[in-house]
Amino acid sequence: MSQTLRLLSEHACFGGVQRFYEHASEATGTPMRFGVYLPPQAAQGPCPAVVYLAGLTCTEETFAIKAGAQREAARLGLILVSPDTSPRGTGIDGADALWDFGHGAGFYLDATQAPWSAHFRMERYITRELHALLCAQLPLRPDAIGLMGHSMGGHGALTLALRHPGLYRSVSALAPIVAPSQVPWGRKAFAGYLGPDESSWAAHDACALIAAGHRLPPLLVDQGLADKFLAEQLQPERLEAACRAAGQDLTLRRHAGYDHGYYFVASVIADHLQHHAVRLKTG
Amino acid sequence: MSQTLRLLSEHACFGGVQRFYEHASEATGTPMRFGVYLPPQAAQGPCPAVVYLAGLTCTEETFAIKAGAQREAARLGLILVSPDTSPRGTGIDGADALWDFGHGAGFYLDATQAPWSAHFRMERYITRELHALLCAQLPLRPDAIGLMGHSMGGHGALTLALRHPGLYRSVSALAPIVAPSQVPWGRKAFAGYLGPDESSWAAHDACALIAAGHRLPPLLVDQGLADKFLAEQLQPERLEAACRAAGQDLTLRRHAGYDHGYYFVASVIADHLQHHAVRLKTG
Repeated sequence: MSQTLRLLSEHACFGGVQRFYEHASEATGTPMRFGVYLPPQAAQGPCPAVVYLAGLTCTEETFAIKAGAQREAARLGLILVSPDTSPRGTGIDGADALWDFGHGAGFYLDATQAPWSAHFRMERYITRELHALLCAQLPLRPDAIGLMGHSMGGHGALTLALRHPGLYRSVSALAPIVAPSQVPWGRKAFAGYLGPDESSWAAHDACALIAAGHRLPPLLVDQGLADKFLAEQLQPERLEAACRAAGQDLTLRRHAGYDHGYYFVASVIADHLQHHAVRLKTG
Repeated sequence: MSQTLRLLSEHACFGGVQRFYEHASEATGTPMRFGVYLPPQAAQGPCPAVVYLAGLTCTEETFAIKAGAQREAARLGLILVSPDTSPRGTGIDGADALWDFGHGAGFYLDATQAPWSAHFRMERYITRELHALLCAQLPLRPDAIGLMGHSMGGHGALTLALRHPGLYRSVSALAPIVAPSQVPWGRKAFAGYLGPDESSWAAHDACALIAAGHRLPPLLVDQGLADKFLAEQLQPERLEAACRAAGQDLTLRRHAGYDHGYYFVASVIADHLQHHAVRLKTG
């Protein structure tokens, strides 16, 4: 098991530093890359952190480049972590053929179906390997880590927090896939990674997990109403209904005119970082 | 002369809207694209605007995606305009061969040398055609337009403001090329676009223009000290000396640790927009 982090690049940013690292991952059997923003406060000692899971086709750079989150993170003293969205260069036949399955579309779960199961183990990567690596080698407070994500990464944030209670102290999502078992993106990914037996899918479906009794910290979700994926893929009303039925604390904000992209993410990211900071800095 | 603006895309952003347009340009003889951010205040009436000229290899999208400027522009009520950095698809032999000359590297001047002179007329495009188009078709206050730029675009901001007194009420630059006649990027571009007679170059060299008596509004310039182009291409001490000798008001800030990229631009963009807003909203 290699725990060597290779620094790919480093950029001063809002008094702190945006870095990109690569390391050999045991979970995926491939090199994996991630971004870390260290705010100025991290030079003085460990800081709370928010891990951001990105959506389909994104890389570890997308959030760092497009969300404009470093400004607020510097103000709040939050570390930002941006993993890649799947293993890369797996050599699996067909892994580059589709934009919504395979490379760039790991769905933050451990595949059980060959050939994907050899490398597509993003749940283990995010919740165990990267988590341990961050806590061991970067100035994070291990008891103060939040999780958020966008679209496919919103699905990742919800399901990983539901499946690993206590690991993440704060959770939020932007335009998340909330019921992957019920929508085309999720059904395609789950059929490929988990196989045709749909009984195995509920364990990776946020709405199903909430209905089964799993719980999250108070949840903030933002959704644009001009998002072209809203009706077919996202369906936030399913999350709203599941949380209401289960007594899960949810703040779901609908934003007229906003689409699915990073101009939307940038517009609400400060609110999300504040949501996390309140919970990570207390208790 | 076509004045038809074709809306390519539109994204809600910080209560306003980020748009991208294309139009047939008379100045360049090609289609040209630009970005416009309209803050929420623009729905109520005309607003001051800042035109941002980008650097080598950039397009009209770079600033909109990477600088995170919309947040502060929304707070200040500033329109942001981001033109492309050259004509595209000119068909000129060799125009795609180099990253620092030709497409993506227009240097904000009107070329006098064939074959470039047929299309590479960015000074006329920015100061006449686009300026008129913006004032006629978007809710800008024509008497309250500022100009800024980064790297090659910093050269553009300084020289266009120096050469067109009164057109821009406020000016600033990020890591600008200040003495293109004296540095490799500029000498290569000027030799190609303006020809080997160096006597024609001074009219497009910010330091030479200042020495010749041209003046700017009070100027803000930021420069990172970890910028790999600092010593060879940028040399801000030349601008400092020219301004001191000429009595030109200059605030030059040097930032330890910052490089040439958009993590630097993002870190100081709010200061620049505030510099412009103070001058554009008064007088």
